[in-house]
Amino acid sequence: MSPSFTIDGLQYANWSEKVFRQMREGGLDAVHVTITYHETFRETVLNIEAWNRWFERLPDLIFQGRTASDVTLARATNRTAIFFGSQNPSCLEDDIGLVEVLHTLGLRFLQLTYNNQSLLASGCYEAEDSGLTRMGREVVREMNRVGLVIDMSHSAERSTLEAIAQSTRPIAITHANPSSWHPAKRNKSDRVLRALADGGGILGFSLYPHHLKGGSACRLGDFCQMIARTADLIGVDCLALGSDLCQDQPDCVVDWMRSGRWTKQVDSGEGSAAVPGFPTMPDWYQDNRHFSGIAAGLAAVGMTQEEVAAVMGGNWLAFFEKSFGPVRSAS
Amino acid sequence: MSPSFTIDGLQYANWSEKVFRQMREGGLDAVHVTITYHETFRETVLNIEAWNRWFERLPDLIFQGRTASDVTLARATNRTAIFFGSQNPSCLEDDIGLVEVLHTLGLRFLQLTYNNQSLLASGCYEAEDSGLTRMGREVVREMNRVGLVIDMSHSAERSTLEAIAQSTRPIAITHANPSSWHPAKRNKSDRVLRALADGGGILGFSLYPHHLKGGSACRLGDFCQMIARTADLIGVDCLALGSDLCQDQPDCVVDWMRSGRWTKQVDSGEGSAAVPGFPTMPDWYQDNRHFSGIAAGLAAVGMTQEEVAAVMGGNWLAFFEKSFGPVRSAS
Repeated sequence: MSPSFTIDGLQYANWSEKVFRQMREGGLDAVHVTITYHETFRETVLNIEAWNRWFERLPDLIFQGRTASDVTLARATNRTAIFFGSQNPSCLEDDIGLVEVLHTLGLRFLQLTYNNQSLLASGCYEAEDSGLTRMGREVVREMNRVGLVIDMSHSAERSTLEAIAQSTRPIAITHANPSSWHPAKRNKSDRVLRALADGGGILGFSLYPHHLKGGSACRLGDFCQMIARTADLIGVDCLALGSDLCQDQPDCVVDWMRSGRWTKQVDSGEGSAAVPGFPTMPDWYQDNRHFSGIAAGLAAVGMTQEEVAAVMGGNWLAFFEKSFGPVRSAS
Repeated sequence: MSPSFTIDGLQYANWSEKVFRQMREGGLDAVHVTITYHETFRETVLNIEAWNRWFERLPDLIFQGRTASDVTLARATNRTAIFFGSQNPSCLEDDIGLVEVLHTLGLRFLQLTYNNQSLLASGCYEAEDSGLTRMGREVVREMNRVGLVIDMSHSAERSTLEAIAQSTRPIAITHANPSSWHPAKRNKSDRVLRALADGGGILGFSLYPHHLKGGSACRLGDFCQMIARTADLIGVDCLALGSDLCQDQPDCVVDWMRSGRWTKQVDSGEGSAAVPGFPTMPDWYQDNRHFSGIAAGLAAVGMTQEEVAAVMGGNWLAFFEKSFGPVRSAS
């Protein structure tokens, strides 16, 4: 039997040796990490430089992942492969040439929007969703060419459907849940989920409390039953995890995520003025050591061993294999 | 017998499909091209984007070289591998983290100075040569770590000797000639050439008229005799070509190379106010189709077939093999 993998489709922790050691304790073979939100290209490169220093300092724990085969390399060498992603296209500025440049630097996921209208598409907090822009269609084509995954986690419905339709390759929603389970702005309609699956795409279930029914008090069983029901809706092959773990981040970071430099006010995003900071994670998912509990929870709601392995990492690995880099010509 | 390769160690042409086709006509397996002089990091990335478009448009002629094995790939597929270099460290700004970032983007050569004092070292036109700076020593170490070649073509004597001494890996002088043959500021003393060779480094002989005895009228036989004499001085294994071909460039480009943004005046560099533009290349070396004539010229001055093959490309290939990327740990 092939080994089962554990892959998390989205984290933005306050990175530290402690967090990376917990990835090893939790058996994480790969993690898609957010390296930039509202940063310019140059600022994003500074963030990459900071990651390069982590890789240089801690080569026994982590290394930069570039291809799907790096996940098996990580497993074989007892390390975690770190794959870069951006939650907003600010790093592209208005320059389509940066798609390939950022891909060369290792970017593997890019959200076309983060809550707001971007140069490419509409975010889920805009009153009007005007779909993909002219530049958005060009960038989708370029991302398809170089093999940079389109991520629509924070995008609005029409924009998401248009990205799925426009893209010649499967897209990802790295961290969100079905809105039929919990109707947050950030969660996704069944229509979007069906279109995503029909296009070969993938959904990473989020553990961020604002995306959970019951918030921080959401129970593991409820979360796993929601996954099982989504498997009934769109099939298990397109389901995975994207925890949205923001471990050890100070609240000023969530202010940056939400407000960037686009407003002089405080935008509460999914929070509220009364509860402005990061929400408390569920007690059964506090950090990277707790993935085995989710696997057990999935088994407890009736998923087979193969289905659990697929959701815990196998589906991400298959998605990585078909997504990172140019389309291989038929041989 | 192994195939002989043709590799040019420095060009800065006004790139065009014509130039790339001439590379194929001339049998060039690899060319180190200058992608930036005084440009900031962001401007350098724009230049890389322009190169990416060439690679996308003309994949049957050229592709980006990253490792020595790309030279053999180029030979096997009848294309020319293009290796990136910078003639000045402006692209590093004041940020050592950009060494690795630029290496990831494919930079394989970096001059520590271009005529002037830089943040790293002194250029050959400065009145005072203060050697490697504090940052210069740090950057040399970082270039050694990632496998980015130190190029001292436009550097001053003491700075060059210190770079050779400080570097734990062989360095390059990609385009210059012995000053004992033609005492231009840009040419190199026998002391520098001996130190270069002792450190395993490599010299690319320049065909730029200001570096030639007799300038544009220099004869092929004189040029080849100079190479043969340099082989007697420091051995043939560290000798190669670095034509400094600036084909089809308008004279505004040489103004940029010489004056950048560091002066409001016109700096004539190796030229003069009376003869400000690009000099005329020797009639026996006008473009990439003329390398076979140089090979014949080297044979005519008594070099063996093996020596000619080494100078025409074999030595560059061996240098690429030991220089591009981190030092391989002994297995």
